Amino acid sequence: MARIVMKFGGTSVGDLDRIRNVARLVKREVDAGNEVSVVVSAMSGVTNQLVGYCQSLSPLHDAREYDTVVATGEQVTTGLLSIALQEAGVDARSWLGWQLPIRTDNAHGKARIESIEGGELINRMQAGQVPVVAGFQGIGPDHRITTLGRGGSDTSAVAVAAAVRADRCDIYTDVDGVYTTDPRIVARARKLDRISYEEMLELASVGSKVLQTRSVELAMKERVRVRVLSSFADPEGENVGTLVVDEDEIVEKEIVSGIAYSRDEAKITVRRVPDRPGVAAHVLGPLTEANVNVDMIVQNVAEDGTTDMTFTVGTSDLPRAQAALSAAQVEIGFAEMSADPQVCKISVVGVGMRSHVGVATTMFRTLAEKGINIQVISTSEIKVSVLIAEEYAELAVRALHTAYGLDAA
Amino acid sequence: MARIVMKFGGTSVGDLDRIRNVARLVKREVDAGNEVSVVVSAMSGVTNQLVGYCQSLSPLHDAREYDTVVATGEQVTTGLLSIALQEAGVDARSWLGWQLPIRTDNAHGKARIESIEGGELINRMQAGQVPVVAGFQGIGPDHRITTLGRGGSDTSAVAVAAAVRADRCDIYTDVDGVYTTDPRIVARARKLDRISYEEMLELASVGSKVLQTRSVELAMKERVRVRVLSSFADPEGENVGTLVVDEDEIVEKEIVSGIAYSRDEAKITVRRVPDRPGVAAHVLGPLTEANVNVDMIVQNVAEDGTTDMTFTVGTSDLPRAQAALSAAQVEIGFAEMSADPQVCKISVVGVGMRSHVGVATTMFRTLAEKGINIQVISTSEIKVSVLIAEEYAELAVRALHTAYGLDAA
Repeated sequence: MARIVMKFGGTSVGDLDRIRNVARLVKREVDAGNEVSVVVSAMSGVTNQLVGYCQSLSPLHDAREYDTVVATGEQVTTGLLSIALQEAGVDARSWLGWQLPIRTDNAHGKARIESIEGGELINRMQAGQVPVVAGFQGIGPDHRITTLGRGGSDTSAVAVAAAVRADRCDIYTDVDGVYTTDPRIVARARKLDRISYEEMLELASVGSKVLQTRSVELAMKERVRVRVLSSFADPEGENVGTLVVDEDEIVEKEIVSGIAYSRDEAKITVRRVPDRPGVAAHVLGPLTEANVNVDMIVQNVAEDGTTDMTFTVGTSDLPRAQAALSAAQVEIGFAEMSADPQVCKISVVGVGMRSHVGVATTMFRTLAEKGINIQVISTSEIKVSVLIAEEYAELAVRALHTAYGLDAA
Repeated sequence: MARIVMKFGGTSVGDLDRIRNVARLVKREVDAGNEVSVVVSAMSGVTNQLVGYCQSLSPLHDAREYDTVVATGEQVTTGLLSIALQEAGVDARSWLGWQLPIRTDNAHGKARIESIEGGELINRMQAGQVPVVAGFQGIGPDHRITTLGRGGSDTSAVAVAAAVRADRCDIYTDVDGVYTTDPRIVARARKLDRISYEEMLELASVGSKVLQTRSVELAMKERVRVRVLSSFADPEGENVGTLVVDEDEIVEKEIVSGIAYSRDEAKITVRRVPDRPGVAAHVLGPLTEANVNVDMIVQNVAEDGTTDMTFTVGTSDLPRAQAALSAAQVEIGFAEMSADPQVCKISVVGVGMRSHVGVATTMFRTLAEKGINIQVISTSEIKVSVLIAEEYAELAVRALHTAYGLDAA
């Protein structure tokens, strides 16, 4: 017997038939003697429609009212799945964020969970009932509904799993696990049986959309074992997915476990900035004020008393970043600015890098052999990322996948 | 300056343009110096869709989950209208049933309001803010969302008006007031400027769908002045609607103020029931147990020691009523049963009847002149109702409208 939190995303509950299918998946775990809580997203498409309504009425709408509107998507699913479970003979009831409660901070539209009362959920599970918790939502200190930002249901699920001290948090989605890279680009990509939190975090943050970054951070902090698996798998077949666990639980550590890429990058270069201490802060200050997140940063060696700086921002932030820098041109003192949205970030990720040298060298040599120019490099303990021209994205990913020995047999 | 509760039904908030139009109507009252609270229904069609989802998953669904699902319709509207009001420059915020709170009993799916905390609403209005309250919903003693049953938003509005001691509760709908009869049947039907609670109650309960019966009962009990008016009227034109008030406020009392009809009736006759004291209770007992509401009842004079009973039930209850009676045939001891769903109830309503004789006589004579046979008669202090064959419905309504001098000049 185990205590499991099962989370189902929008496509998994996209219509009534799929909701019935989810009820069957839950029933199977209950019938196997497990204690189960469920966390659900809105039916696919619903959240986009509600967000569209709000934006159409006012581009700068009150985030508290936005939360009141969009949180209804998960509310509907939680009630419908409870009905489907009862119809399947499983005792179940819905729980909304304000009912548990799931307390968050007051940052409407992108709130963070502060606490979840797990006691009542544990009581219900022990009494044989399945709590069906609305993901993505909570209640703020203002006694109003908050939402966690897009994809927040993953975070809800991990937080619920931590609150009830679950043995496992199963994230059901439309893919059957985490792959060494995007299977749409590399046909020989392999599904990973296990991956560490740190690796998953790097993969999530560089464009592998399987799990929301914050949910992985929370799982790592709370040591929640997360499993990613498909809700559309053949019920008779094997459906073990990928387990996201502590590094210690991974015996055979790969040097590189995955290749990720992100096209959602834009490069900005400012040229001939007077070189003085704190120049980076001078250049990046206006971006921080404009709420633009800067990712990779390179500062060239100064020659004539000036320096060039290159950095990347999210594609959607590019116009705002350019406007903020232009407004501050006199203050910063740069001569010119150029921008290039046609770039792509490629990352190789693996906890094994810590104990192996030469991982970066392999990357640079492989790209050079294909004639791909590296524009910016950044590294972390378990990741090497490079910025290249977007047109080389697939070529680079495929070449690296082979170079690191990740291709399936 | 007045304190007004404005209520908008599903067609009035049916799409984003209509929600913007509602914001304009609210803004006009605010700009005129009034304190305003708003109560809203779900966007038209939404509730039906959600109800359909629940029924499709399980015909006998958990009413608590049903409430969780369908209450989202009003939740969406309350957030969207708040955004639209803010965009129009009006300070506004949404209030859900559990936030105020609107406390109800625990009868999920058809709950009754027990109390509304009006203090916070009054504070907000006095501070210049417009509370936008979700109609149709509340919170039960089980700390879960309840709904009031179809059309319940009218009741919510009247209850909010009572809680904030409003000068008036304006019910905006898709008609411009209460008419002497259905204008689709009688072209010369007249809009009434005023009507008493008692008359409105009789008209509501016999098929005039302008206001939900319970909302009128509540308005009468709490002495809330209700105005029915159109949300689609020309903003520059006159839009006074119909005021539903205490009888004392109506100076010129009409003998008959309206003719109502209801096709939602079915007639059942049981023949040759052994005539003994309490026979009516014997016949009707099984129907009460089957939760079937009986309206008109006639018991014929007994001749051979047996009696015939005729009564009416709602059309949708007919199969259940017939089944209950068949099951109890031996116990009741009747010889045969017949049913006729092709009937219509016609009612003439007016507080003036109390002081005038001959109202019923005029009705019977008028119908006789048109060759219409009366099957059942029932009367109350301010109403005379007859059951006739459905095919004569329009003819009867038109003839009575003329006979009582209600035709517009």
